[in-house]
Amino acid sequence: MIKVNNNFSKLQKNYLFAEISQKVADFTKINPDKKIIKLGIGDVTKPLVPAVIEAMHKAVEEMADEKTFKGYGPDYGYDFLINKIIECDYKSRGIDLKKDEIFVSDGAKSDTANITDIFSIDNKIAITDPVYPVYLDSNIMSGRTGEYNEFTKKYENVTYMKVIEENSFVPELPKEGVDIIYLCFPNNPTGTTLTKDDLKKWVDYAKQNNAVILYDSAYEAYITEENVPHSIYEVEGAREVAIEFRSFSKTAGFTGMRCGYTVVPKDLKIAIGSGEKIGINEFWARRQSTKFNGVSYVTQKAAEAVYSLEGQKQIKENINYYMENARIIKQGLEKAGYTVYGGINAPYIWLKVPKGLSSWEFFDKLLEEKNIVGTPGSGFGPSGEGYFRLTAFGSRENTIEAVKRLTQEM
Amino acid sequence: MIKVNNNFSKLQKNYLFAEISQKVADFTKINPDKKIIKLGIGDVTKPLVPAVIEAMHKAVEEMADEKTFKGYGPDYGYDFLINKIIECDYKSRGIDLKKDEIFVSDGAKSDTANITDIFSIDNKIAITDPVYPVYLDSNIMSGRTGEYNEFTKKYENVTYMKVIEENSFVPELPKEGVDIIYLCFPNNPTGTTLTKDDLKKWVDYAKQNNAVILYDSAYEAYITEENVPHSIYEVEGAREVAIEFRSFSKTAGFTGMRCGYTVVPKDLKIAIGSGEKIGINEFWARRQSTKFNGVSYVTQKAAEAVYSLEGQKQIKENINYYMENARIIKQGLEKAGYTVYGGINAPYIWLKVPKGLSSWEFFDKLLEEKNIVGTPGSGFGPSGEGYFRLTAFGSRENTIEAVKRLTQEM
Repeated sequence: MIKVNNNFSKLQKNYLFAEISQKVADFTKINPDKKIIKLGIGDVTKPLVPAVIEAMHKAVEEMADEKTFKGYGPDYGYDFLINKIIECDYKSRGIDLKKDEIFVSDGAKSDTANITDIFSIDNKIAITDPVYPVYLDSNIMSGRTGEYNEFTKKYENVTYMKVIEENSFVPELPKEGVDIIYLCFPNNPTGTTLTKDDLKKWVDYAKQNNAVILYDSAYEAYITEENVPHSIYEVEGAREVAIEFRSFSKTAGFTGMRCGYTVVPKDLKIAIGSGEKIGINEFWARRQSTKFNGVSYVTQKAAEAVYSLEGQKQIKENINYYMENARIIKQGLEKAGYTVYGGINAPYIWLKVPKGLSSWEFFDKLLEEKNIVGTPGSGFGPSGEGYFRLTAFGSRENTIEAVKRLTQEM
Repeated sequence: MIKVNNNFSKLQKNYLFAEISQKVADFTKINPDKKIIKLGIGDVTKPLVPAVIEAMHKAVEEMADEKTFKGYGPDYGYDFLINKIIECDYKSRGIDLKKDEIFVSDGAKSDTANITDIFSIDNKIAITDPVYPVYLDSNIMSGRTGEYNEFTKKYENVTYMKVIEENSFVPELPKEGVDIIYLCFPNNPTGTTLTKDDLKKWVDYAKQNNAVILYDSAYEAYITEENVPHSIYEVEGAREVAIEFRSFSKTAGFTGMRCGYTVVPKDLKIAIGSGEKIGINEFWARRQSTKFNGVSYVTQKAAEAVYSLEGQKQIKENINYYMENARIIKQGLEKAGYTVYGGINAPYIWLKVPKGLSSWEFFDKLLEEKNIVGTPGSGFGPSGEGYFRLTAFGSRENTIEAVKRLTQEM
């Protein structure tokens, strides 16, 4: 008799962003005349840059001609893209990676969710709190957590590492043994960062405890400060303990295009029985060649164009545009008396909700009174309660209008 | 201490097609002057049709303009595509499906591999033998099989259902209880089909045994005979027991584009404790919204164009071209005395290897003496031993040349 995966029953009912969409849809139905400004989901709004558009048109033409048509591509991505990644994203920062350490994929969301396929169910995970929900939910589904505790609002058998005002948003090293550590910096949702020294402590901890760090640097392109590492491999020893996830989604506006990549260094070896060590690069290679079939050729040509001189200039203009929005939101809110974090090395503004309100109450109030959609901090974990996330991905006009509405007496 | 997923160690060393690629690369290195004809991997060679190319250029232009740019799309696909799927692939055959029963994805390979996320590890799987390797390998990885038995060349705790000459390539219903049944018809690798009556027996069996059928109909566009079902939902009661996978890869030459879809009917309900039944449509919906982020907008517009009048006409021309290749291979080989199956409702020709040779020996002989690459039947399972797969996806010229070489004395 067929049996379902009972771990699914442990999941909280709604995926955060689905719940927000529903609330907005309900509100719009009753108030069709209100002009809602959406600063909730971290989705870009600027169109693809001209260099990318040009590359895509060319690639489409190649697909139209028998002589240049591309069928199945290499499982892990075309060399033309992998070489650019190695050269521009890593070598330029003094990091040497080999071609077979890079795996091009349809995005960091899939990869951060699928990566745990290669690890035993018995591993204990550690996540920051608040956290990007995918890390937790994918582990709930695969059975790596206990049940949800209504009282603590946490799952049993998961280590939650607070990322809050009181510790300057720098998580403390876990006291109990953990095996898989998720770190996302610049952080989603708080918009805060770690210095290289902070990150070094994590790499050392992972080495000492035989743990693996899953490092999501999807927002690295938004870093403006000098002492903030773009890649975990800037830290010595990291290639022995860390897998890094990157995405073109925020870097180049590819949220609707689906392309990212994952770095699994060959130096990352795990002890198996009898003291032998095994490289997990080959585990991921096997997982991907079995359960994934590569990324669209047209999309990979688009990603390659991101690295051209023109492409780099153009995407930086867009990033600067978003970061100017971040500045406007941050300074506007500070002027109005809010306590605000993030927004300097990330497109996220993490604000403290006015006293007496929960994150969801603030969400409702903002939607109803200001017609602004943000994301309640508690949706990212119990320590997100009392915080609220706004994104800098709106248009300048909407951003200014939102700040105007937000700074008016509520 | 981090632990790897030990199930990976149960996998046979090489993914079939990787092994073939390696052999071909080695041969080419030593014999750079030989003109190799590849009829191995089932990859298309005709370029994308004009209707698709036009739609892609338009979609790229939309991505260039702020007013029409698309960021994150709906997790399960855009309505414009889902509506076409429902209308053209199902309604036209008398099958009614609702919008939320269709899940657009990056291909049938990913979906057939990922679908088991929603089922318990404790289920017993049944696969045909020979079989498309992904069904088996994805279950080995997730721990749903025992160890590999060198002697039987089978995995423990898996039901292998022979699809061989002796049973006219119609698998027998399993005698032991099985929970998850993989069926792929028109079949890869044998190219053979089931009639509607054959398929009815499976639907009835699944109902009686509370099993789920995972039905891969990636090759339905190649069906030329009347009594061969294109969808399992043509069989009464199938929506209560079957999930169907479709792909644009072979239908429209999308192997390098990555688009397919999966149908999970709401009527497919599974008993959980206390006699309650639960719809697994919502399990897959949750799986996809958590671990997948939709398909590129440009690719979905391309897929939509497949359903236009022009698109339908153009893809049928390509399919006819490939099926004419199939006819040439089939008739040529028969004339030369080979026993040949498939090639009538599928782009695959499944031939019996001359007596005294194993499938891999025939592979080597063909590569070395005829410079033709095919796929050894034993790579698809122990009952594939003694068979060999050729595909009809080559150019006409190469196909004719291959048949000429094959029919010369070996």
